[in-house]
Amino acid sequence: MNTASLVFQTDFGTGDGAVSAMYGVANSIDPTLRIFDLTHDIPQYNVWEASYRLIQTVQFWPAGTVFVSVVDPGVGSDRKSVAVKTKTGHIIITPDNGTVTHVHRWLGITEAHLINEMKTRLPHSERSHTFHGRDVYAYVGAKIASGQLSFEQTGPVHPQEDLVMLPVAKAFREKDTIHGQIDVLDVRFGSLWTNVPLDLFAELDIPYGQRVEVEIRNDTRAVYQNFLVYARSFADANVGESLVYVNSLHNMAVAINQGSFAHAYNIGTGSTWKIQLRKAPKLVYE
Amino acid sequence: MNTASLVFQTDFGTGDGAVSAMYGVANSIDPTLRIFDLTHDIPQYNVWEASYRLIQTVQFWPAGTVFVSVVDPGVGSDRKSVAVKTKTGHIIITPDNGTVTHVHRWLGITEAHLINEMKTRLPHSERSHTFHGRDVYAYVGAKIASGQLSFEQTGPVHPQEDLVMLPVAKAFREKDTIHGQIDVLDVRFGSLWTNVPLDLFAELDIPYGQRVEVEIRNDTRAVYQNFLVYARSFADANVGESLVYVNSLHNMAVAINQGSFAHAYNIGTGSTWKIQLRKAPKLVYE
Amino acid sequence: MNTASLVFQTDFGTGDGAVSAMYGVANSIDPTLRIFDLTHDIPQYNVWEASYRLIQTVQFWPAGTVFVSVVDPGVGSDRKSVAVKTKTGHIIITPDNGTVTHVHRWLGITEAHLINEMKTRLPHSERSHTFHGRDVYAYVGAKIASGQLSFEQTGPVHPQEDLVMLPVAKAFREKDTIHGQIDVLDVRFGSLWTNVPLDLFAELDIPYGQRVEVEIRNDTRAVYQNFLVYARSFADANVGESLVYVNSLHNMAVAINQGSFAHAYNIGTGSTWKIQLRKAPKLVYE
Repeated sequence: MNTASLVFQTDFGTGDGAVSAMYGVANSIDPTLRIFDLTHDIPQYNVWEASYRLIQTVQFWPAGTVFVSVVDPGVGSDRKSVAVKTKTGHIIITPDNGTVTHVHRWLGITEAHLINEMKTRLPHSERSHTFHGRDVYAYVGAKIASGQLSFEQTGPVHPQEDLVMLPVAKAFREKDTIHGQIDVLDVRFGSLWTNVPLDLFAELDIPYGQRVEVEIRNDTRAVYQNFLVYARSFADANVGESLVYVNSLHNMAVAINQGSFAHAYNIGTGSTWKIQLRKAPKLVYE
Repeated sequence: MNTASLVFQTDFGTGDGAVSAMYGVANSIDPTLRIFDLTHDIPQYNVWEASYRLIQTVQFWPAGTVFVSVVDPGVGSDRKSVAVKTKTGHIIITPDNGTVTHVHRWLGITEAHLINEMKTRLPHSERSHTFHGRDVYAYVGAKIASGQLSFEQTGPVHPQEDLVMLPVAKAFREKDTIHGQIDVLDVRFGSLWTNVPLDLFAELDIPYGQRVEVEIRNDTRAVYQNFLVYARSFADANVGESLVYVNSLHNMAVAINQGSFAHAYNIGTGSTWKIQLRKAPKLVYE
Repeated sequence: MNTASLVFQTDFGTGDGAVSAMYGVANSIDPTLRIFDLTHDIPQYNVWEASYRLIQTVQFWPAGTVFVSVVDPGVGSDRKSVAVKTKTGHIIITPDNGTVTHVHRWLGITEAHLINEMKTRLPHSERSHTFHGRDVYAYVGAKIASGQLSFEQTGPVHPQEDLVMLPVAKAFREKDTIHGQIDVLDVRFGSLWTNVPLDLFAELDIPYGQRVEVEIRNDTRAVYQNFLVYARSFADANVGESLVYVNSLHNMAVAINQGSFAHAYNIGTGSTWKIQLRKAPKLVYE
């Protein structure tokens, strides 16, 4: 019995029938398939965030799980479609547009195959050129998850070095300051998730309860500067107090306990949003 | 083993417990049932859109799938409840208020039965008069999907011609102009989905890459007029460029590549929103 | 074969990967588990509403169903984690912060156990202190639902009287007036759900079709006063007309037929939002 789950991620939202049509295609291929969602609320065309949400979740699913991620600004262009396998044994079906950037960097990719969109697709869907999520990706994902198509049979081997990758900024330490970037938000809570790994931050040797000087810049503009407590968890800050903490991916994050840091200071994400962290000078109150 | 899936559609949203209560009722009837969502974000009371989302999805699910659609402005009135079967072998349980309009027109209905809401309902739910989604429709849908109640046993045969149908405007060609209507939006992307089928548009004999003159009127007011490229897919237009294309249901649609046409021009849907398409005159730049 | 379903409720939203990571953890424990959602749109940190949504749904699921509810403003504090069993045989895994208030009051709790968060958690998740939804609650819930951990084995017995409970105002009648509170909204439709049970309202002896005088106050401010029809269902009021009705939990509710009462009058929920109901004086038009 096959128990490989199929997990869908898109930027389609769930307000119309698009995602359900994908579910229908998968169920038509195998009415016993286990199908789940990652999210369908990736901001439209935001490949970076699609890539990030994969690294946030893939590793918590069993090896063999098949992820179908469709954030596809290039639908109908000559962008490729690929099936990739990670070192952890997870499979991702996606347009080759950078969606596997984080998975490649943090989990590692062992093998990639090109998908022939004209051949391996929902029968009789040739007249439709704008919904590869339904006609190609859900179809191929369900074929693989159900065991009707092996990963290796999806198409010719695609050299890993040819996979499209988005530029990824690496955080670094310069003397007593760590330079990083705001990668993504914890959407509902408005916390900032940076690219600064705990291990790098640990070099600053700041114990829980001590203060961290946090500076945030957007391009050339200073957006925020303050001394925040380094808290083990939200409960170690007062309600409404800002804090630095380690997020669930073991990267450094900034939040307001029970508030939204992103809303409070109008903070965004991406390569222009820089953050600096350093040990705060000791405050002496006399 | 029964593998008929149960698919729910409502206008309840997923912000409270209503949909989950429906899932609970279905699971109580058969804890092995496969239950899925079409969407729960149909605009409140919008039967037209409920009908449209069914035609967008039903055909992609396996025959035998049971759809429960609850957009029910008349709950508690003498509106009927029906179970209908399509020519494609799909079953729909719904208030008889026009929800099967598109399915009737494009897939065809072979049989309809009246549901006795007083008899065929969740036991001990008689004191509740406002949540037929839970007490009647989820209950009946789960009974059928699980094989505990046959489609034919749901109640007396209901003549198809008595089913409530919403008025549907048919697109038509008058000389060199096609007259249609904006039926619905591709919600997240803001594209306009018209009632003009590709086959009708093809009579204009406009090849990909050529221009289409698009006029949009709301009632007596001109809303939009321009010459747009007829693109095979989004990638054939520049980012930010408007285009005419064939949507995933093989109808003509209008979009901005990576933008929202509906937001850009404040465009709505329904019988007052008319669209005209014709071959654009050849532009000669000298 | 085990068929206990696992049902997740959080305030995480579904815009990022948090909920899917919980699904992944549960699938990793048992890839045959049936997993469903209550809602993930509980307003952030709103334990009261989490508690209410449980009472709105739990009883419609089969006995044995395992609910995991994670609205957890105190994550990382010394707040406890508990597994409780209701008289109806449902199991709830949650921070001990008041989430089981309504379930305790209306269904009754037979047994509670403390969960040792340091021991019973996702292996290798010790460095993460901010996502107990994934690391503790989804893990424990899946262990129980899959039969790998019995309810009794979750930890030492926790005295029921030590469970954290939120204050609950009880509606009461004083002469000809019922005094209640607006507990929660029917989110998508904006109807007011009060804490006035039908049985108490029935003491006013108002038949369907007669008028109810409705007064709403927020703290010291009068917000609304009018005479509304007591309707069996929405269809007994005109479109746009306000009405008093019995909601799907058999409590009294106030709505605008096909409109939003909450939006129309800016009405909120909680202990400061009081409602009074009494029989309206007979209107005689001459």
